[in-house]
Amino acid sequence: MSTPRRNETGFLSPARAAEVVRRVGLANCLRGMADCLEADYRRWQDFDKSARTASHSPDGVIELMPVADQQTYAFKYVNGHPRNTQDGMATVMAFGALASVRTGAPLFLSELTLTTALRTAAMSALAARVLARPGSRTMALIGNGAQSEFQALAFHALLGVDTLRIFDTDPAAMLKLAANLRPWKLRVHVCASAEEAAQSADIVTTATADKARATIVHPGMVEPGMHINAVGGDCPGKTELHPGVLRGSAVFVEYEPQTRVEGDIQQMPADFPVTEFWRVLTSQAPGRASDAQVTVFDSVGFALEDYSALRYMHGMARDLHLLDTIDLVPGLPDPKNLYALLRPAPATTAAHTAVLENA
Amino acid sequence: MSTPRRNETGFLSPARAAEVVRRVGLANCLRGMADCLEADYRRWQDFDKSARTASHSPDGVIELMPVADQQTYAFKYVNGHPRNTQDGMATVMAFGALASVRTGAPLFLSELTLTTALRTAAMSALAARVLARPGSRTMALIGNGAQSEFQALAFHALLGVDTLRIFDTDPAAMLKLAANLRPWKLRVHVCASAEEAAQSADIVTTATADKARATIVHPGMVEPGMHINAVGGDCPGKTELHPGVLRGSAVFVEYEPQTRVEGDIQQMPADFPVTEFWRVLTSQAPGRASDAQVTVFDSVGFALEDYSALRYMHGMARDLHLLDTIDLVPGLPDPKNLYALLRPAPATTAAHTAVLENA
Repeated sequence: MSTPRRNETGFLSPARAAEVVRRVGLANCLRGMADCLEADYRRWQDFDKSARTASHSPDGVIELMPVADQQTYAFKYVNGHPRNTQDGMATVMAFGALASVRTGAPLFLSELTLTTALRTAAMSALAARVLARPGSRTMALIGNGAQSEFQALAFHALLGVDTLRIFDTDPAAMLKLAANLRPWKLRVHVCASAEEAAQSADIVTTATADKARATIVHPGMVEPGMHINAVGGDCPGKTELHPGVLRGSAVFVEYEPQTRVEGDIQQMPADFPVTEFWRVLTSQAPGRASDAQVTVFDSVGFALEDYSALRYMHGMARDLHLLDTIDLVPGLPDPKNLYALLRPAPATTAAHTAVLENA
Repeated sequence: MSTPRRNETGFLSPARAAEVVRRVGLANCLRGMADCLEADYRRWQDFDKSARTASHSPDGVIELMPVADQQTYAFKYVNGHPRNTQDGMATVMAFGALASVRTGAPLFLSELTLTTALRTAAMSALAARVLARPGSRTMALIGNGAQSEFQALAFHALLGVDTLRIFDTDPAAMLKLAANLRPWKLRVHVCASAEEAAQSADIVTTATADKARATIVHPGMVEPGMHINAVGGDCPGKTELHPGVLRGSAVFVEYEPQTRVEGDIQQMPADFPVTEFWRVLTSQAPGRASDAQVTVFDSVGFALEDYSALRYMHGMARDLHLLDTIDLVPGLPDPKNLYALLRPAPATTAAHTAVLENA
């Protein structure tokens, strides 16, 4: 019988994750996460990939997103319930874990609501840094919910975007976004419509929440050379782009099998041409062909991004001594003797043994 | 802006789960869980079911097992790494959660290592109560690892099994099992081989861990009227029964699409006849045909069983005031203002705002 082995799992709560971001600095955090995403997308072939599993209901969707390389397994639990905000709850909530591929032991359990917002924005900006016209400084931001500040600041930090044209059907959301961005060096124009927001924008980001076939961007809004960052069309029956926008663009995706089902391209025929982003990053496929071409990043969120984000936050939390621990799996003196876990603490042996025997 | 809503999730650690079992009594707990399993299997059609996702590596497998009815979503993370015990770690470790289908909010996060052992044993005994010959009192228990005490006690509590014939290739595991069972009213015969253990047994339970095409039970060991409870053959390349044993038996499974890939029937042609257990339970298919027929429960573990087990443990922990809480998702005064989570606590506003701005 070996000595007891503690099976402690690292833990990061939402409050601790926020503390990590405050200590690192939000812009640094978005840049650091984008670096992790880029490094992991460059070694695409190392990962055991699958489309996420989704459980749909009338009110929303609950998804599990697993991915693994040879050392580390990651998964995320995430929901999408657009009507939640009417009841004072977030549309998207998430948590997840890292585990050892060699032993299966969970190493790190983390909040992923804030972390998902960071990684989604970092991924959008990373894709735009590769695909948008160089010198893009003005971004339309349509949909000003929980994700919008992170999109704005990721594009500010990674691409130098300095002007935002914002629109939301909920005026309070626009005011909230504008107020939150006030401390940053960004010009913010509150617009009266999605059309007005898109006018003269270099980049158009859509981050709306309705689980519907919506047309947030139609062909009349698209100008030559635009980069469209479509974040909100991310599950079956939930789209943001008019099919004509997709037909007129070069479309880039994260993981084709998943995006065919969940992305804006769910509206298009199965052979509609798309390019996986990792191929552009590794020079195996062309990105933007000209300054006049319209590019679309049809983002749905892929498990690899959560792997990168979990690793980044785990490392930062550990380095900053902000990592808590949680008892998630038992430490057993003899691993074949799980039953021993039921033995009472020594002080109360007699009474508890009786309970076990007579039960 | 509504009042802040706490998004606390209930939490049950391994130590707390063990305390719940001690307080309820292990036999009561196994019976209670079997009742939950039976009730949920009887409403099979209510569930959105899918085969679990598995990530295989040379050392083992990591799986995610989701299931949902119209109210509650459940998932389990579980690994299977047979070589872990050589390093003092458990072969199987697990945790999981319950969530609201209406909002996606996680309601309960729990250890599932102990709970999985309980639910697997309760499920085995439930199936045997329906499928084994009435009056079965002697059980062979081959494979005396972490699962074995729970199997023994579930069959004792649910079927009145009073005699065990145990065998393991690891003598220390046999001694451990015999010692753990000493307080219970069970006759335990330590056997020199699997063949000897199976002699004159009414029920043969196999719970071995090797990820290999093993032959734990061959046709020469099978006697008329036996019920074989095959627990360990539960992933591709991991089997316990000789194909001849399956050919000579009526085979019952949990969820056919999953068992075809993972169960002992992975060795058989795709049209090898099997019956899903819920159909027997609801009288839509026959169970055992005669006292001479050999029945096999080709158990692999299905997500529905974790749903039942999570619900049972959640309810018991709550009733016994043993439920802790964990901050897994943020509570936000304005659900569209996730960014507000990054605001420093009021006392330190000035310093932290500077960090945010200059980052």
